[in-house]
Amino acid sequence: MSHNTFGHLFRVTTWGESHGPALGCVVDGCPPGIRFTLADLQAWLDKRKPGQSRFVTQRREDDLVKVLSGVMLDEDGETMITTGTPVSMMIENTDQRSKDYGEIAKRYRPGHADYTYDVKYGIRDYRGGGRSSARETAARVAAGGLARKVVPGLTVRAALVQIGKHKINRANWDWAQVNENPFFAPDPEIVPVWEEYLDGIRKAGSSIGAVVEVIAEGVPAGIGAPIYAKLDQDIASNLMSINAVKGVEIGNGFGAAEITGEENADEMRMGNDGQPIFLSNHAGGILGGISTGQPVVARFAIKPTSSILTERRSIDSDGNNVDVRTKGRHDPCVGIRAVPIGEAMVACTIADHYLRDRGQTGRLK
Amino acid sequence: MSHNTFGHLFRVTTWGESHGPALGCVVDGCPPGIRFTLADLQAWLDKRKPGQSRFVTQRREDDLVKVLSGVMLDEDGETMITTGTPVSMMIENTDQRSKDYGEIAKRYRPGHADYTYDVKYGIRDYRGGGRSSARETAARVAAGGLARKVVPGLTVRAALVQIGKHKINRANWDWAQVNENPFFAPDPEIVPVWEEYLDGIRKAGSSIGAVVEVIAEGVPAGIGAPIYAKLDQDIASNLMSINAVKGVEIGNGFGAAEITGEENADEMRMGNDGQPIFLSNHAGGILGGISTGQPVVARFAIKPTSSILTERRSIDSDGNNVDVRTKGRHDPCVGIRAVPIGEAMVACTIADHYLRDRGQTGRLK
Amino acid sequence: MSHNTFGHLFRVTTWGESHGPALGCVVDGCPPGIRFTLADLQAWLDKRKPGQSRFVTQRREDDLVKVLSGVMLDEDGETMITTGTPVSMMIENTDQRSKDYGEIAKRYRPGHADYTYDVKYGIRDYRGGGRSSARETAARVAAGGLARKVVPGLTVRAALVQIGKHKINRANWDWAQVNENPFFAPDPEIVPVWEEYLDGIRKAGSSIGAVVEVIAEGVPAGIGAPIYAKLDQDIASNLMSINAVKGVEIGNGFGAAEITGEENADEMRMGNDGQPIFLSNHAGGILGGISTGQPVVARFAIKPTSSILTERRSIDSDGNNVDVRTKGRHDPCVGIRAVPIGEAMVACTIADHYLRDRGQTGRLK
Amino acid sequence: MSHNTFGHLFRVTTWGESHGPALGCVVDGCPPGIRFTLADLQAWLDKRKPGQSRFVTQRREDDLVKVLSGVMLDEDGETMITTGTPVSMMIENTDQRSKDYGEIAKRYRPGHADYTYDVKYGIRDYRGGGRSSARETAARVAAGGLARKVVPGLTVRAALVQIGKHKINRANWDWAQVNENPFFAPDPEIVPVWEEYLDGIRKAGSSIGAVVEVIAEGVPAGIGAPIYAKLDQDIASNLMSINAVKGVEIGNGFGAAEITGEENADEMRMGNDGQPIFLSNHAGGILGGISTGQPVVARFAIKPTSSILTERRSIDSDGNNVDVRTKGRHDPCVGIRAVPIGEAMVACTIADHYLRDRGQTGRLK
Repeated sequence: MSHNTFGHLFRVTTWGESHGPALGCVVDGCPPGIRFTLADLQAWLDKRKPGQSRFVTQRREDDLVKVLSGVMLDEDGETMITTGTPVSMMIENTDQRSKDYGEIAKRYRPGHADYTYDVKYGIRDYRGGGRSSARETAARVAAGGLARKVVPGLTVRAALVQIGKHKINRANWDWAQVNENPFFAPDPEIVPVWEEYLDGIRKAGSSIGAVVEVIAEGVPAGIGAPIYAKLDQDIASNLMSINAVKGVEIGNGFGAAEITGEENADEMRMGNDGQPIFLSNHAGGILGGISTGQPVVARFAIKPTSSILTERRSIDSDGNNVDVRTKGRHDPCVGIRAVPIGEAMVACTIADHYLRDRGQTGRLK
Repeated sequence: MSHNTFGHLFRVTTWGESHGPALGCVVDGCPPGIRFTLADLQAWLDKRKPGQSRFVTQRREDDLVKVLSGVMLDEDGETMITTGTPVSMMIENTDQRSKDYGEIAKRYRPGHADYTYDVKYGIRDYRGGGRSSARETAARVAAGGLARKVVPGLTVRAALVQIGKHKINRANWDWAQVNENPFFAPDPEIVPVWEEYLDGIRKAGSSIGAVVEVIAEGVPAGIGAPIYAKLDQDIASNLMSINAVKGVEIGNGFGAAEITGEENADEMRMGNDGQPIFLSNHAGGILGGISTGQPVVARFAIKPTSSILTERRSIDSDGNNVDVRTKGRHDPCVGIRAVPIGEAMVACTIADHYLRDRGQTGRLK
Repeated sequence: MSHNTFGHLFRVTTWGESHGPALGCVVDGCPPGIRFTLADLQAWLDKRKPGQSRFVTQRREDDLVKVLSGVMLDEDGETMITTGTPVSMMIENTDQRSKDYGEIAKRYRPGHADYTYDVKYGIRDYRGGGRSSARETAARVAAGGLARKVVPGLTVRAALVQIGKHKINRANWDWAQVNENPFFAPDPEIVPVWEEYLDGIRKAGSSIGAVVEVIAEGVPAGIGAPIYAKLDQDIASNLMSINAVKGVEIGNGFGAAEITGEENADEMRMGNDGQPIFLSNHAGGILGGISTGQPVVARFAIKPTSSILTERRSIDSDGNNVDVRTKGRHDPCVGIRAVPIGEAMVACTIADHYLRDRGQTGRLK
Repeated sequence: MSHNTFGHLFRVTTWGESHGPALGCVVDGCPPGIRFTLADLQAWLDKRKPGQSRFVTQRREDDLVKVLSGVMLDEDGETMITTGTPVSMMIENTDQRSKDYGEIAKRYRPGHADYTYDVKYGIRDYRGGGRSSARETAARVAAGGLARKVVPGLTVRAALVQIGKHKINRANWDWAQVNENPFFAPDPEIVPVWEEYLDGIRKAGSSIGAVVEVIAEGVPAGIGAPIYAKLDQDIASNLMSINAVKGVEIGNGFGAAEITGEENADEMRMGNDGQPIFLSNHAGGILGGISTGQPVVARFAIKPTSSILTERRSIDSDGNNVDVRTKGRHDPCVGIRAVPIGEAMVACTIADHYLRDRGQTGRLK
């Protein structure tokens, strides 16, 4: 597939830079008859948008999404119904301070894509990171909002499970807590720990990495495909496409390297309702690339924001040694805002596979 | 892209089951003029083939690769030269003991794809796992042999770095050791530890997970592509497509979650030769989805072989509760034979991106 | 490839309906460093836009194109330079008279896509034909403007060669005439004939078919690809995707059915400059799916506009027999405005193959 | 899509040269549970194979197809059942007379792909045309045999309707005649005319073009897709990919250019069974790229075989002027054997769209 598109039947193409007039996406392949309101989509965008707490960038963007095509308005004047044609969505950029970036037009910020874009393209939109800015992910979140409606009964949720070395206590997991704190933490006891820790990071102009866990429930058994469109493979691919992600795992993930076949096996029994039951979910809901019907569980690691106040050694595009410190408004922990993005990418992946399987096997409704 | 194909310009389509007459692949998009011998390819297949030590499956397959199209013989009668048309390669299955599998025709082996294939397709080739068998990876290794020739100066090597909880000592890393022991271990000191540990696993009819690290050197700076064909994304996707892989990471990977922006930054300086130098490689050779010119570093976790002798609870396709123990010839640690497979997948990914970038930017030779 | 996208490395995704707020396209894979102005693009859009003579629809649309991403402004404040990231272009719809279409919301206009959209999707944007409107082609023309800049030395021109049974005299062919008459006719002698004929068609509320010929000069020899991405195949595919096109031919086309191998052969000789010369071009510049270096010649047939004033028998979506006559502002011969669209599709196809071949063989600069 | 693959969900990848050991295809995406026998497939291959009358090449190939993967044998030991995994099919080349081709290793035969392959790839398998040989189409015919089973109730038939200037009388059309003469002619009265005409061509060592018409019945209404995967577009693309095809048309095709909107309209009425009826089929069963439920009608023009005995002027790969006459065993009219190939390509296209639509809209069973 090409370079700014993902998906095979539910296809998302995104466009736009940090400091252009707008960014957006085209969702091609959305089935007809899907009903949604702008408010439905906006809710997910609001979850991702900057400026919502002192722990994320103070850039102010309303991130209001517009739908430009692919829908008809229902008689209530509010509900949109997809017609099966491409859904084009656009988000205007409003808070661009291009001046902030002038001095780094030629300097390669360590950890950023500045150097590699220049090597690859020979030209680079340096304003706010241009295309490599995480602003691009706003479009994904809009697409994810649609994707959630495609698969009947699907729920995709994510939470932050680690900041630096501070991990949640999984015994405390409570979905109801996730939207009650600025970290999307499912464990209320970790919140004060993270607050204190991140305040220190933020005041030092530093940054820190994190881990997000995404759980999709209601995924029908039997979607995904051998061999090169495994459901876990496409989830890994799509999560790894998120800015700053350096690792992805499914189910037990890297933990699976440390255990035996006996420990890792998910045993089965027939349930009282005549349906198969898995007695555990080490596999993260996927076997042989195909969903088992259990929750699909994925985690991804986000590196610390590369924009930090401490000077780092670097070079510029003229071949001079320079020292770079990145001012401006940055996330001390980009992992926080990655939570709704991870959800969106998993939702899109599942919607895509659902449509493929309905086509190929005709077994899904 | 579709389901048994990967790559965009260097495209590999594989086919075949564990117990059919043969398996193979079609490599479409291999540039013309690539020179190789059958022995070149066979060397990689030999590295992957079963029966080479007591730590891998005792199935006996010669895994001899034939080239059926896409090449002309040079005057030496041995060197093949690609013509730019599809290279079809075939490996015949010779040691099929279908009888071994009769009793599991209807039983879902925990951790295997038996249940999910049945749910998805309503029919399943149960012999040796059918299409979900790791035998399919022989075709990938053949394709990888070609891919290595596509990018001038490319070297792709891998090693096993962890079995169960036993990790190598990275200070001992010595590539010369990797082919000197049955584990592809780069650390000679870990070899006796793993031998003893795996002998125990094997004798117990158990199995254990592992971690493989792949390092690609000679990757030109500037290949890869935002946003949905990032080099790390495609590597993650292709490694995750290998049987039993449950996690993938690039550079610092999940370790990046635990460190600060200062620690994670790869600083740069101009070298004495006027070329940029990175002072570290936390990024694993990729920034913003594009190669930096440093070694590309990826790791993947393989779960323990699901085929174990201990009885596990399961069900059969008629909806009965059954207990399953998997006899037959199995790898106590499939991670070992995943080493050449991981190399092949990374080589194919890099070859594909190299061709794409040569097309799109015209900057590569 | 998916449904609203064409191209493999130079990929164009279009979106938008006749009566939505806007329509547009995302051009993904445009090489970096391409320089153009909005005026460059607008010139092609102006050629396609409605209302320019009495022989085309009187709908009034300025069809002003905006570029939303993928470029940086040069210091002159006018020249745009592509950065290699997706170029998003948008054209706002301004002259929508949705009232015109109210009465056909449920009636299937013969020859239109009304019935088939309803059968396929179960919902249909009836306003102006929705997605099936030829307004969508404005986005293609914008993309074509970019494509023309991708291949050094490429010129793509088209002309109308037939309206109804009235064909041009090819001996009169003069490219300089094409923009001097409202038909894009290369033969000045046909102009009064067509004027009189089309006036009659127009006044009768009728419509008539036409044939367009596209000629691309400066196509490097050696682009295109066996077997399923032949250059002629992709040209045929992309021309056939234009609304109302019912036939496509390359070089001699259907005429090749009537002649012998001797007549059809394009003989060759070495030229005085040491370059091969073809002594004729029956093949239309393509052999075995690959360009010969001669002009690429394609023709396509456009059916008469289906919107006519005469009543036709039809049904409505409730299953009633109805009679339909289509009022509103329609082209008596849509073939006229198909001229710049055909050019755009051929330009995009050639740009795409040029990039593919540069990648795959490394032989193009 | 890539270069030796076509289709999006029903994907066919072919490989092989005229004079290699074998050729074949991989059909990826064939639904599970399709039942067929080797004899089912072989029947189509037999229709295409050489040597069946004096009007086709005297090369002797049995063209026996083997199925290497993707199926299980039913209990009758003969019926194959697809499992949903890739179906690999292989046809061995048996009658290769490479000596025949030695003298043209360096000479570019006019009308053949010799020159363009050399320009593109810099290397060329000259034996029998290598990859550009029509032998490749045997693999398509095998794939088509499977495709026919995918869509319930589908019938795809083709006939030769024109050789040189000699056209059939459509009033005589009788499908029962098609397999009763060596031309696949549906009009028995044309048979003696063509026999006499082609005998003359053959004895002169000349060749002649032809037109094939393909008709698909039982295509469900509502398959196909705007805008760049129109059913007619994909049919045009796939037919144009057949060797020597220079033109494709749907329904009225180029004839649509000559008629008015009134004449071209396919009127509708409700039938007595409550189903819509079209009163004519000028559209060839497709409106707006989507099937109407009427027969899909396509025609394609095949140029005269380029291999002729008369000397033609050409050059060789060393840049010398040479004269070329092509000995060997050639078809005086390749259009004859294109009949089953055209059927196969249309069957594959419809199967692919059927699966896509089942996925995207869920409206097909």
